[in-house]
Amino acid sequence: MTRARSTRIRVRRIPKNARYDADSINRVLDRGRIAHVSFATDGQPYCIPTLYARVGDRVLIHGSSASRMIRHLASGAPACVTVTILDGWVLARSAFETSVNYDSAVLFGRFRPVTSPEEKLSGLAAFMEVVLPGRWAEVRQPSRQELKGTAILEFEIDEASVKTRSGPPDDDDSSDAERDTWAGVIPITRSYGAPEPSPGLRASVPLDRSIGRFVDRDRICHP
Amino acid sequence: MTRARSTRIRVRRIPKNARYDADSINRVLDRGRIAHVSFATDGQPYCIPTLYARVGDRVLIHGSSASRMIRHLASGAPACVTVTILDGWVLARSAFETSVNYDSAVLFGRFRPVTSPEEKLSGLAAFMEVVLPGRWAEVRQPSRQELKGTAILEFEIDEASVKTRSGPPDDDDSSDAERDTWAGVIPITRSYGAPEPSPGLRASVPLDRSIGRFVDRDRICHP
Repeated sequence: MTRARSTRIRVRRIPKNARYDADSINRVLDRGRIAHVSFATDGQPYCIPTLYARVGDRVLIHGSSASRMIRHLASGAPACVTVTILDGWVLARSAFETSVNYDSAVLFGRFRPVTSPEEKLSGLAAFMEVVLPGRWAEVRQPSRQELKGTAILEFEIDEASVKTRSGPPDDDDSSDAERDTWAGVIPITRSYGAPEPSPGLRASVPLDRSIGRFVDRDRICHP
Repeated sequence: MTRARSTRIRVRRIPKNARYDADSINRVLDRGRIAHVSFATDGQPYCIPTLYARVGDRVLIHGSSASRMIRHLASGAPACVTVTILDGWVLARSAFETSVNYDSAVLFGRFRPVTSPEEKLSGLAAFMEVVLPGRWAEVRQPSRQELKGTAILEFEIDEASVKTRSGPPDDDDSSDAERDTWAGVIPITRSYGAPEPSPGLRASVPLDRSIGRFVDRDRICHP
């Protein structure tokens, strides 16, 4: 994974919050679930949300082979892939120092199509394994027609940077700390509700193992 | 709020999931917290996460007056603002029908700077009121210098579309439904942890009213 520090990527605002190393980039990619993919045609930028999967130092996205976005990206046009996790509201004593905790990665590069059926299959498996390890073996595998209708693109990362904010507000040492205003952080997390069976699910079909593991692995929130 | 259906905006993949009306657009904007703002310079797209506030049919973002992104956007360059909420994993019996529930809005338009100090102040208040109603009155207001260092940009929406998926997987009526594979949805929600006081918070300072309301209003998840 490249860690160049060109003008394009160098984080100028609050540079102490910036990282360029592969571990930091992978951490954000593994925490996130949705990427926003940006590209431009005739000077008009587009920003489209999509699932992704990190496999080593590659980032895969997929979509319908007929999709405009997929076809445009597959042509190798310059792209930007951004993943953001919102971690908390940072409540300072002043409006100015009020902030958010977040973890975000901005990747620059180009996509190229994954064409071999074997690689396409393992790419699709990766999408599931990221979210629900073991699920791939439980579901019906793609037919030849389904595989043909699905495009997988692989992102070649030219440059990447991570920007993160964590911890309490920055005004503990300021004169604002004398105010009788509460200061601290409200953490934000992604949580999962109880699995909701499909209306057409036969009553005899139990929760699959991958979903049970999922429920155990990630904290379930009971309202 | 404009609802044009130009070539640029028309959703071609699964058009039944697309909406172009102001109510749908506002729903997504009010559910989301982070926007991804995309712009291009010399054909290179950039995609940067940022907080935003919807005020009527305007979308506001803010940042340092010295930020490259803010300066570029303030010049009126074409931009795309995307807000996405991930609502659940849609677990079908086949790999092909496995999907996600989501709610997303893609807005095309241009930013322009908000210049009057009064409008800047009310814009900053709006950022807080979206997240934490009442907080604005509790914190120290921006100084003249802080206000000068903060740029507020207003997004003028030319076109917008919403794409949403909700509900169970689509394979209840397919031959896959005969498989002994569980099918349904795992809901994903944003939840909030207990407020964490800043290390420098004096013990005598209680939780402010806005934060108490926040804790009441939004579901708190106790792990």
